[in-house]
Parts: sequence; structure tokens; C-alpha cells
Amino acid sequence: MSIERKINVLDENGYVMIHDVLGTDLTVANAARVSYAKKSATLTEGDKRLIDFLAREGHTSPFRHVIAQFEFNAPLMVARQHWKYVVGSSMLEATGDNMDAWNESSRRYVTEEPSFYVPQPNEWRSAPESSKQGSGDIVPAEIGIEAFMKLMDTFNTGVIRYEWALANGICAEQARLFLPAYGMYVKYYWTASLQSICHFLNQRLAHDSQVEIQMYAKAVLELIKPLFPISVDKLVTE
Amino acid sequence: MSIERKINVLDENGYVMIHDVLGTDLTVANAARVSYAKKSATLTEGDKRLIDFLAREGHTSPFRHVIAQFEFNAPLMVARQHWKYVVGSSMLEATGDNMDAWNESSRRYVTEEPSFYVPQPNEWRSAPESSKQGSGDIVPAEIGIEAFMKLMDTFNTGVIRYEWALANGICAEQARLFLPAYGMYVKYYWTASLQSICHFLNQRLAHDSQVEIQMYAKAVLELIKPLFPISVDKLVTE
Amino acid sequence: MSIERKINVLDENGYVMIHDVLGTDLTVANAARVSYAKKSATLTEGDKRLIDFLAREGHTSPFRHVIAQFEFNAPLMVARQHWKYVVGSSMLEATGDNMDAWNESSRRYVTEEPSFYVPQPNEWRSAPESSKQGSGDIVPAEIGIEAFMKLMDTFNTGVIRYEWALANGICAEQARLFLPAYGMYVKYYWTASLQSICHFLNQRLAHDSQVEIQMYAKAVLELIKPLFPISVDKLVTE
Amino acid sequence: MSIERKINVLDENGYVMIHDVLGTDLTVANAARVSYAKKSATLTEGDKRLIDFLAREGHTSPFRHVIAQFEFNAPLMVARQHWKYVVGSSMLEATGDNMDAWNESSRRYVTEEPSFYVPQPNEWRSAPESSKQGSGDIVPAEIGIEAFMKLMDTFNTGVIRYEWALANGICAEQARLFLPAYGMYVKYYWTASLQSICHFLNQRLAHDSQVEIQMYAKAVLELIKPLFPISVDKLVTE
Repeated sequence: MSIERKINVLDENGYVMIHDVLGTDLTVANAARVSYAKKSATLTEGDKRLIDFLAREGHTSPFRHVIAQFEFNAPLMVARQHWKYVVGSSMLEATGDNMDAWNESSRRYVTEEPSFYVPQPNEWRSAPESSKQGSGDIVPAEIGIEAFMKLMDTFNTGVIRYEWALANGICAEQARLFLPAYGMYVKYYWTASLQSICHFLNQRLAHDSQVEIQMYAKAVLELIKPLFPISVDKLVTE
Repeated sequence: MSIERKINVLDENGYVMIHDVLGTDLTVANAARVSYAKKSATLTEGDKRLIDFLAREGHTSPFRHVIAQFEFNAPLMVARQHWKYVVGSSMLEATGDNMDAWNESSRRYVTEEPSFYVPQPNEWRSAPESSKQGSGDIVPAEIGIEAFMKLMDTFNTGVIRYEWALANGICAEQARLFLPAYGMYVKYYWTASLQSICHFLNQRLAHDSQVEIQMYAKAVLELIKPLFPISVDKLVTE
Repeated sequence: MSIERKINVLDENGYVMIHDVLGTDLTVANAARVSYAKKSATLTEGDKRLIDFLAREGHTSPFRHVIAQFEFNAPLMVARQHWKYVVGSSMLEATGDNMDAWNESSRRYVTEEPSFYVPQPNEWRSAPESSKQGSGDIVPAEIGIEAFMKLMDTFNTGVIRYEWALANGICAEQARLFLPAYGMYVKYYWTASLQSICHFLNQRLAHDSQVEIQMYAKAVLELIKPLFPISVDKLVTE
Repeated sequence: MSIERKINVLDENGYVMIHDVLGTDLTVANAARVSYAKKSATLTEGDKRLIDFLAREGHTSPFRHVIAQFEFNAPLMVARQHWKYVVGSSMLEATGDNMDAWNESSRRYVTEEPSFYVPQPNEWRSAPESSKQGSGDIVPAEIGIEAFMKLMDTFNTGVIRYEWALANGICAEQARLFLPAYGMYVKYYWTASLQSICHFLNQRLAHDSQVEIQMYAKAVLELIKPLFPISVDKLVTE
């Protein structure tokens, strides 16, 4: 079923768009019932109880038969955390599924002027008191203003030097060394199973994940909830 | 896009059915173009050349963003070879992709009378002369007739003993020891990317793969060719 | 570290052998600490607490850097359930990892006389009263004796017909249709991460999994416990 | 077998270290021979021919039973390309294997002063004339000198602002926005099968891959060649 719906995230550049999905809640129930060689034509109350049972008991393989495809435009630091989830690699992120496809834009090929995510003066957060990661309250206004201005300058200087390098014949793959990459927007396609998507949401909606990626996770949740209401309700526990 | 189309294979029991797909040839081109942050609205001649280039150069990740979902009813020996492909495990079958979901019926749960695939008297093949695997010409008629009759008896006796065991209170997971399982039909769902499907086809359409699985592969090819004409044409080389 | 240790399972044919391992408990701690760019030379009390924390909080990716390699000889019905775990496919078995390699013997190539697993007369179990799967108490002696004798006959007849087919020139891939495959021994190599192995153990040591595979799981546990004592203790909860 | 060998790459900060391996060339041959239920005790000429056959015909699953574990210290732009390979995601990089584990350092946790990779004045390369990617000859000396000095200033200013942000209570996950991340060193563990490692080498030793990652690939090749001489010789074709 081809659908197109877009939600803006962070600022006027950031977004999550859903392109297409395969399957419905009924697909989950039928994929589970194939163990008993059974099949439903429409979603019954029994199917809903079965989906609840599957999610509760961790029998998540039937949710791998439902797929959704997204396009993201996100700062590199968000994309990197998202990839880490997909690779199932970082200490804090174990993946329960690798039914994921991923294609993204690269500064080895793209040489157009990059756009950057700049937190507004009142969006800079303090280090948390009791944890090595995450963030706490908003910092005092004067710090926020200074951070905003320094970051604008960092981005402007970075772009000026990047374009100087390209204009002077330096290859794109080295010229990008001048770019303050964490805040730079990258575009990527993510095609993943409902199991994988909901696992990502449970990790990334959690209050100790980075605020910027929480906002992307909320957009994904808003896009998929109306499409697979029972499954998402049962699988997403955050 | 929900579609339902079914092709019978082997006999009146065997089949491949396509349930649903996600994406089109255009999805492949756009997933590739995201590296350059570009996107098409309709499939152009340039997109077709791009798909050809991707397939030819082995840049297959964009084909992972197109998905199809199948239901199979196949003898266990076919299903096992298909799984081996999915696990990427047997000596002759390396997988290029594991974007696969798999759910199947199990004799630990299903206790209905099983159905079996019996090659007709004129369908028994000889051992090949020059290879340790595969098969050659049809065996002489009297051997084929005897094989057919012996196998009918094996299946009948197997089912009688299986039902005797169940009727006498033996658990299903042990009762199945009486079943001549290689020929027994099992039902399974397979959801896979176009990359994975075409890799499977290139392996299983090959003349040295088992004839029975070649027939399933031909049905899969017939089902997907009209849906992704350019990609399938470029990726399937057998 | 090359090691060779073998434990017999089920009867004189069945076994699990460990061939080799990569890493120790310390590898887990160091793979986790790389997030903080830290590293230990010997396993400290702090490392043990870290491993406990990782297991408890489900941060299992560091356990993927420890690998073990096994050789199994197991009835096909055990191997199939084991594969299903690896594919992450059956309704009751979701995999948390696919860092698994798998190679196995195949009746498309092997034509030596097969060996079979025959439960002794006092090893036949009844169907459970309250569940669609699993098994209960041992069946009455006279049923067990009759089942044993019928199964011996099934295996003998199967082998006689299989060898008749081969002797009459039928190809191996069809001749195997005569074999009662569920009880037939197959040999396979399984190379997997400690995360994957322990996930398998938690699924297969559970009392509702098939008794025969529980026995293989116990052998795996006995083989790996002395090698990775802290990690196995924390990850295996059954 | 625990081994420790380190090769410096790029400058005094960059390196690849091998920590440990599982298996030898013999493991490959035995994993392949299990299809025929056969096994060798020492590597014979027949085993070498078998490895050559497996590599030539693309039957690569036996190479998944041999594993090596590496520690990298590499600029983020190298690490990102390496990850892309592992995710199997970028347009130009399809992965043939995902038997990979990955853990890495993160600027969400690490707040020590970062180190950076700065190409020396005579190491800046020009854009290639005929391709959208890659690089050509060294740029004129005066451009190289200016690029070097601008980049030193970019890194110094980035670090000063990063430390200003941390000192003023801004959380690490936002403070890193000031860092010119592409050149920043990150440390990571990569545990992968020989199939995966050699696939990576074939991609990254190629003349059109980024020069900096080619240098890491060469170090990996030098580390594994003496350990698996036959397999590496047959699998690495670049």
C-alpha cells in the first residue's frame, strides 16, 4: 500500500516521511497461525488476543512479516544513533532484528551546501547530575545565547572553508573534514519490519535517550500507530 | 499493495501464493539516488539504466527496499533447501542478504493427517553419472512403478502408525518419528527483499538444483516478474 | 583457543562437541568499555559487576564479541528446531542475534546408511493434558514397547527401501523420500556468539521445549560454563 | 588463540590491532566437508584445492566459521564507511555477510579531549576529473599548506568551543555539535567472520575507495594473511 505522510521534526529541515507499508495487524495473526496451518480473512477478537499474547510472551517473529519504509532527514548525530541501533552494536543498544535496509546520502558524492541543525538559545540542555549520559534542565539564558552564536559561527566557518576547499580543487572526501558533521543534515531510507521498528521505539522513546532522537521516534510512532493499531499498542511499551 | 495470486506446483497440494508487496522498480532507483539526495516521481529511462548499472556492478543494497510476501505449501525436502538458503548455510548456498522473515507449520502443534508429495511412476529420476548431486534421466518404467508403489506404502504405513501413536496417547513431538518427513507438505510464510528473492532464484533456477525446488523457483519468478519487470530482468541471470 | 571436548547425548550416536572459542569474560567487559575508550588487562571485580549489569539491563551487544564453535550429531527433528531458532522464525522462537554460521550434512550428497534415534520402550512420553505442545509422563509400558517395535520396523523398512532405490539407480535426492527423516541423525557445525548461545539456552532449557533438545541444550551449557563462568551465569536464567 | 599485534595507520594515533582469532584454514575445509560428513585432522593438498574451489565458486558459507577480532582507532569518516559496509547499506557497498559484532566509543559518554586526523600539507588530494567520487593527484603545495593550516585552526577552535560548552554545564550530547567530527578519532571493536573480512577487503582495497580507508584495509590484510594464508589468498582478489 503506497502512502505518503510527512511529519516535521526539530526545525524546518528535519522530517520523517512514511512511503509505503506491507501488511496489517491481520498479517501478524496469520503469520503466527501458520504454525497451526490456520488463516483468518478479517481481524477477529481472537486475532487481537493472539497479537497481545505474542507481544506479551516475546514471540515476535510474526511481527517480522509486516514492513514499513521511511525517509528521514536528520542531523548526523541522530542518524548515527539510529544506525547503531540497526547494527545492534552500541553498548546500550541491542537489536532484536536485522530485517532492516538502509541507504543514505554521503558527502563523498553530495557537494551541495549542507544544512545544519542549530538548537535555539532556549534549547541547550545541561549535563545530568547523576548520570554519565543524557541531559537535564535547560541551561541559563546567557549560556544558551552564547552557545547558539558560537555554533552559528562554527557552521558558517565550516561551510566557508568547505567551499574554499572544493573551489580550490580538493576532493570532496577530504574537503568534508572542515564540516562540523554532528549537526549536519543527512537523508536516508530505512525499510524495516514492525518488530524492528517497535524495538527501536522502545529504545528511543525512553527518557534517557538523546532528546533529539526521541523527537524522531515520536514522529515514527505517530506515523505507524494508525496503520497497525493493535500491534503497535501491544509492542510499544514506553 | 495487497495482491493475491496463486500458482500450483508439483501436484494438487503444492503451491506458491503471493500475498503482498512493498515498492516498485522506482523504489530501487530512489533508494539508490538518496546517496546523491535525489528522487524521481516516475520511472524514467535514466532510472532503468541506473537499475541496470546497480545489478551489473553488484550494488544490490537498493533492492533491499522492495519486499514481497509469499505463502508456500511444499514438501519438507523443498522447504529445508529453501531454509538453508535463508540461513545462508549449506556449502552450496551462500546468502547475500538476510532480510528474510519465516514462519511455518510444525508437527509439534499440527496433528491433522498430513499430505505427501509422491512422484508419479514416470517422474523418478536417475543418479547423474558425473556428479555427486543432482539427477539425470527418468529411470526405466518398471523401476518407476515399483518406486511409486513402495512410496505409497511407506506413506500409508507412516500415517497409520502416526495415528496409532496419537490415539494411544503418545505426544505429537515423538509421534512424528513415524512420518516419512521428506515428502510431507509443510506450509510457510516467507517475506523477503527483492535482493534476497532474486538471489534465491539465481541459485534455485540453476539446472543443478533439485528439480522439485526449481519448479517452486519458476512459480516465484512468474509471480514477481510482472510486478518489478526491470529489476527482475536485470537481477535474475539464470 | 582450540579445545576439543565431547559430550554424548540421547544414545551412543548423539553428541555435542566444542571445537574452539574466541574470547573470555574479559572480552565482554572490554567490548563494553570501548564506549568509554577504556580497557582492562585482567578480569577485575568491577568487570564482573559490569557483566552483571549488562546482562541484567539487556545490553547484550558486548556478548557478541565472544564466539564458540560446536559440532552436533542430532536427530533431524532436533536439528530443525535448532535451525528455526537460528532463522528466528518459528512462532515460539524469536532470535535475539543472527551472528550464527551453520553448515550441515545433506542427504543430497551423503548416501551412506543413515543412523536413527529410537526412543527406548520406557522413553515414550504422553501428550500433555493442558497444552497443544510439549509432553507429559511416560506412557504405559505396553504402549512404549509397541511404539519401540513399530519404530524399529519403520526405520528398517525405510533403510531397505532407500537402499533398494539407490541400487536401482534412483537419484539420492528422490531416494531419501523413503527415509523416516525426523529421527535420522545429521551432523552440523554451529559457530555462534555467546549472546546467541545463551539466548538459545534460555529457550531450549525451558521445561516446555522438546525433551530431546533440552538434552542437547544441557550439553552445550556444560561445555561453555567453565569457559565463560561469569557471563554464562548472568545470561542463562533457566 | 589469543594474539596481539598492532599496525599503525595514517599517523601516530591511528591503528588496527588484532586481538584474537577462532579457527584456521583447516576449519574452512572441515566446515565444507560436513556436507559429506567428512573431516580432516591436518590441512592436506586436497583441503587447499577445496578452499580454492569454494572461493572460486562463491560457496562462501564455510568461511563464516573462522572469526577474527580487531580493535580500530580511526577517524570518524573511516569508521562511518566501515559501518556502512557492516550495515550493508550504501549504494556502493553491499554486504555479503552480517556475522559482525561492533562496539565503539561515543561522544555521548567520552568527554576527554578528542584527537584528530590532519592530512599533512603534501597529503591533500584533488577531485578526480572523470568521476563523482574518489580522488586524484596531490594538490599544489600552496593549497595543501593553506588547507593544513585552516584545518588545524578548525580543530583547535572546535576543541576550544567544545570544552567551553562542557565547562559551562552543557550536556555532552549537545556539546559535541562544536566538533569537526569527520576527522575525529574513534575507537571500536570489530569481530567478524573471514567471509566478512575478505569481502570488506575486496571493497576497500579497491583503488576507487577512499585512500584513508584503503590504508586501514591494508593493515587488516597484513594482520590476517599469515594466519589464514590459503583462504585469504583465494578470497582477496584486489
